[in-house]
Amino acid sequence: MLTLKGKSVFAGITIGPLALFHRNTISTASHTVENPEVEVIRFQKARDESIEQLKGLYDKAVQKVGEEQAAVFEVHQMMLEDDDYVDSVEEKIRNGKINAEAAVDQTAQELADMFRHMEDAYMQARAADVLDISRRVEQQLCGGAGIDFSKYDHVIIAADDLAPSETLQLDTDRILGFVTSSGSTNSHTAILARTLGIAAVVNTGNQLHNDVDGLMAIIDGLTGMVYIDPDEDTLSQMRIKQQEEKACKARLEQVRHVPTVTRDGRVIKLFANIGNPGNLPQVLANDAEGIGLFRSEFLYLENSDYPTEEQQFEAYKKTLEVLEGKTAVIRTLDIGADKQVDYFDLAPEVNPAMGMRAIRICLTRPDLFKTQLRALCRASAFGKLAIMFPMIISVAEVRKAKKILEEVQIELDEKAIAYDKDMEVGIMVETPASAVMSDELAKEVDFFSIGSNDLTQYTLAIDRQQTALDAFFDSHHPAVLRLIQQTIENGHKAGIWVGICGELGADLTLTETFLRMGVDELSVSPPAVLPLREKIRSLDLNKA
Amino acid sequence: MLTLKGKSVFAGITIGPLALFHRNTISTASHTVENPEVEVIRFQKARDESIEQLKGLYDKAVQKVGEEQAAVFEVHQMMLEDDDYVDSVEEKIRNGKINAEAAVDQTAQELADMFRHMEDAYMQARAADVLDISRRVEQQLCGGAGIDFSKYDHVIIAADDLAPSETLQLDTDRILGFVTSSGSTNSHTAILARTLGIAAVVNTGNQLHNDVDGLMAIIDGLTGMVYIDPDEDTLSQMRIKQQEEKACKARLEQVRHVPTVTRDGRVIKLFANIGNPGNLPQVLANDAEGIGLFRSEFLYLENSDYPTEEQQFEAYKKTLEVLEGKTAVIRTLDIGADKQVDYFDLAPEVNPAMGMRAIRICLTRPDLFKTQLRALCRASAFGKLAIMFPMIISVAEVRKAKKILEEVQIELDEKAIAYDKDMEVGIMVETPASAVMSDELAKEVDFFSIGSNDLTQYTLAIDRQQTALDAFFDSHHPAVLRLIQQTIENGHKAGIWVGICGELGADLTLTETFLRMGVDELSVSPPAVLPLREKIRSLDLNKA
Repeated sequence: MLTLKGKSVFAGITIGPLALFHRNTISTASHTVENPEVEVIRFQKARDESIEQLKGLYDKAVQKVGEEQAAVFEVHQMMLEDDDYVDSVEEKIRNGKINAEAAVDQTAQELADMFRHMEDAYMQARAADVLDISRRVEQQLCGGAGIDFSKYDHVIIAADDLAPSETLQLDTDRILGFVTSSGSTNSHTAILARTLGIAAVVNTGNQLHNDVDGLMAIIDGLTGMVYIDPDEDTLSQMRIKQQEEKACKARLEQVRHVPTVTRDGRVIKLFANIGNPGNLPQVLANDAEGIGLFRSEFLYLENSDYPTEEQQFEAYKKTLEVLEGKTAVIRTLDIGADKQVDYFDLAPEVNPAMGMRAIRICLTRPDLFKTQLRALCRASAFGKLAIMFPMIISVAEVRKAKKILEEVQIELDEKAIAYDKDMEVGIMVETPASAVMSDELAKEVDFFSIGSNDLTQYTLAIDRQQTALDAFFDSHHPAVLRLIQQTIENGHKAGIWVGICGELGADLTLTETFLRMGVDELSVSPPAVLPLREKIRSLDLNKA
Repeated sequence: MLTLKGKSVFAGITIGPLALFHRNTISTASHTVENPEVEVIRFQKARDESIEQLKGLYDKAVQKVGEEQAAVFEVHQMMLEDDDYVDSVEEKIRNGKINAEAAVDQTAQELADMFRHMEDAYMQARAADVLDISRRVEQQLCGGAGIDFSKYDHVIIAADDLAPSETLQLDTDRILGFVTSSGSTNSHTAILARTLGIAAVVNTGNQLHNDVDGLMAIIDGLTGMVYIDPDEDTLSQMRIKQQEEKACKARLEQVRHVPTVTRDGRVIKLFANIGNPGNLPQVLANDAEGIGLFRSEFLYLENSDYPTEEQQFEAYKKTLEVLEGKTAVIRTLDIGADKQVDYFDLAPEVNPAMGMRAIRICLTRPDLFKTQLRALCRASAFGKLAIMFPMIISVAEVRKAKKILEEVQIELDEKAIAYDKDMEVGIMVETPASAVMSDELAKEVDFFSIGSNDLTQYTLAIDRQQTALDAFFDSHHPAVLRLIQQTIENGHKAGIWVGICGELGADLTLTETFLRMGVDELSVSPPAVLPLREKIRSLDLNKA
């Protein structure tokens, strides 16, 4: 039995087989091969696997984001089945006596070039697709990336840490938990675990290798312990603990479908944070009253090029339809800092967290911003949508963003395209500047949502991912609590509602503090909804 | 004529020849040579040049920091003249038929190893020295680094940007100005230019190359223009402008040796910021009333190993002696972020500005901190010294730092070593957390000094070096001004004095605002002292 200790990010207990998340770098360098037929067979196998993958992705996407948006996977499948493509690759292998990776890459470049030079805009756009499918085949040729589900249907994922784009590719229905050797409790792996409500222990300091693949493991999210290949004693103890945990969950069922209200009658909006329409089932399953933070960058992180207005519109519309009249507060694009996307071509920065990110990118590139705003406005006709701008530091920025939104709405009016004219527009309060200026900012918007994670890191000048500074980091730092209080008071003076959508919102030891400060809304990861409702319903703010 | 436009960091006009700051990477890889005698001659030449350099450094150091601290350069000179060293290198070249670089490196490693295994601690410490002198010779062999002063005595330095350690190696007496293609107005090159009071234009966006070396250039610090190889018209226009500039300087002479007091009688302490005892002549020449910010990391940046208590003590003592009773506020070590020192072996960070730096390093490594605190306490017996802790975010940190200081003082008491028992202890207020908590922090210390540069970058969540964000950066952001006001008010409520030592302190458009807020002290770069005094003496705070 190997015992690891890390930081728990979700207090569940899970038992199951480990699977290592593996990555292989793609190399398309050309070299001569002795037997080209071996390469042809390698190509055919990789192509078949890619087609299988695309079928799976299509089915999942139809279910999660609708047929229209899923169509791209069907198109890709068809392209891989196209004879011209297949013939070109195989010919290159045979005539040039080169490796399959190089042949696929050369074919991709040639076809992309051909598409790019076509007159028809639709055909030009196929260049990106042909590169994308070839990339998928190359990845298969180089050993693939991700999780091997061949032995087990459901696994505990072991990794060093996962990038945002990697977490998005995971088949979340089959994940029992996470064990990571690095990364903080605010890493994307941690956020995903909380969203899914599955046990996860991060930053164990122990890099796991291939030899653990398939071994039984236990994650105890209550203590942060991980037991790999556990002995009988440990296993039976943990099984008992798991039963107790289940009993606790059963207790939470009692606060399902009841109002979120304190004993003395204060009603709180209890919303959920999500990063993907794929998380919508969790929002409903945990009885959240709406979405308080929809991280809209998922479409940008998933794609290899800028998502179209149509793709975005479909995703937002579908979200609102699933919510059936409940509110969705959608945060506009927050790319940059730790969320990098190649095609944005952002320059490397010395301190990316204090760099070109979020609203700063959108105001610098208004066309990009307008595409998203148009999609949001159009979707607003199908339910209750609110727009939220991230990383605001000044009144001038809010006015600029609102001006661009207004331009979009005038264009829609001219074309008689419907949108919700009463749509609320708010901002994230996640920089010290915006908290300090919240009196002025409150006059400009319909609501504030306090992003406690970023607000804390900037206020303390401590990168929240830098685990070496844990001794200096205080997630309950009085300066942050004061700034939150000030923001709530200033919001209320201007007559707007104020919520908290950072991790602090789910911290049950602070719930009473926030309610006494007057917070109107708390938005937390879906599995934190019911425990928080139970907590709120136990409070009596009339008692000293 | 080549015309460049950048950002001016000091409003002077300078005319003179350009010299490119060049860097050469050192390579000590071994390879066989045909004619070893050529390599022996190369070695001898590089050794002679190194000895010349060391002589120059020794003379300069005696003048600036005293004989005791300069001694190291004499020791290094002697080591380079040592026959064993020279014989070993030449033997390796001749016997191995290898290049001089490799022979020097091998000799260095062998001798360092030998010293390390000696029993005597003094001899062990020579290992670092032998590596240091060899490094110097290797640099000469690889073409040297720095400025070629062979053609002109005084030059305008052209560079992309200079690292803190590179600015420290410059012979500041011979610099007329700076032109840099990158770097912000808060870069170290900019700070040095302001300290020296010489014209500098940064971030022209134009990388200059060898072909400009020796060309005549004009820096107009009033407009941010740089003219390289100027035509006659431009030259004569700029000469007139330079004359006007000199007249302005003459006017400032009228506020030399007069009190810094407003028309209505408010007395302000007008201090200077320095980064090196070498800047002391500028402090006196500009009639500063003391030092409000002494950046004590210079000894760490200059050395290739931790400076000893003795080295630090000597530097501080000399500073106090030069000041003849005026106050010197010395900030404890602020290493990390953009000030990296190899031997600290700090792990690379994603966001170094929000990382392991300053007091965070000192509290994590109390032995290192104690060495500096002992040197500071001992020096305090020789004048008026105050200690200031940087990057504070909490009361707990201040108490820990004071606890370590107390331990040092108890040790000194036990050994009956003198120190100033009334020495003031303060903190930098340069994080949003410390400004927000300034009421609580004021109870713990004798003074606050507001570091406006860092306070602004954390409050706005904008890296001050990231020029791409200039459109979002507002150096007069109202949130920063509010935090400054709050800090001053909280300081006064607790009965302590509050100063500003960041660049904002020298901004004459804010002087009245700060004085009305009640600021007690302003500490600015030496050349900004007299203009600021003139401004303060022109103000009448009784007038609305």
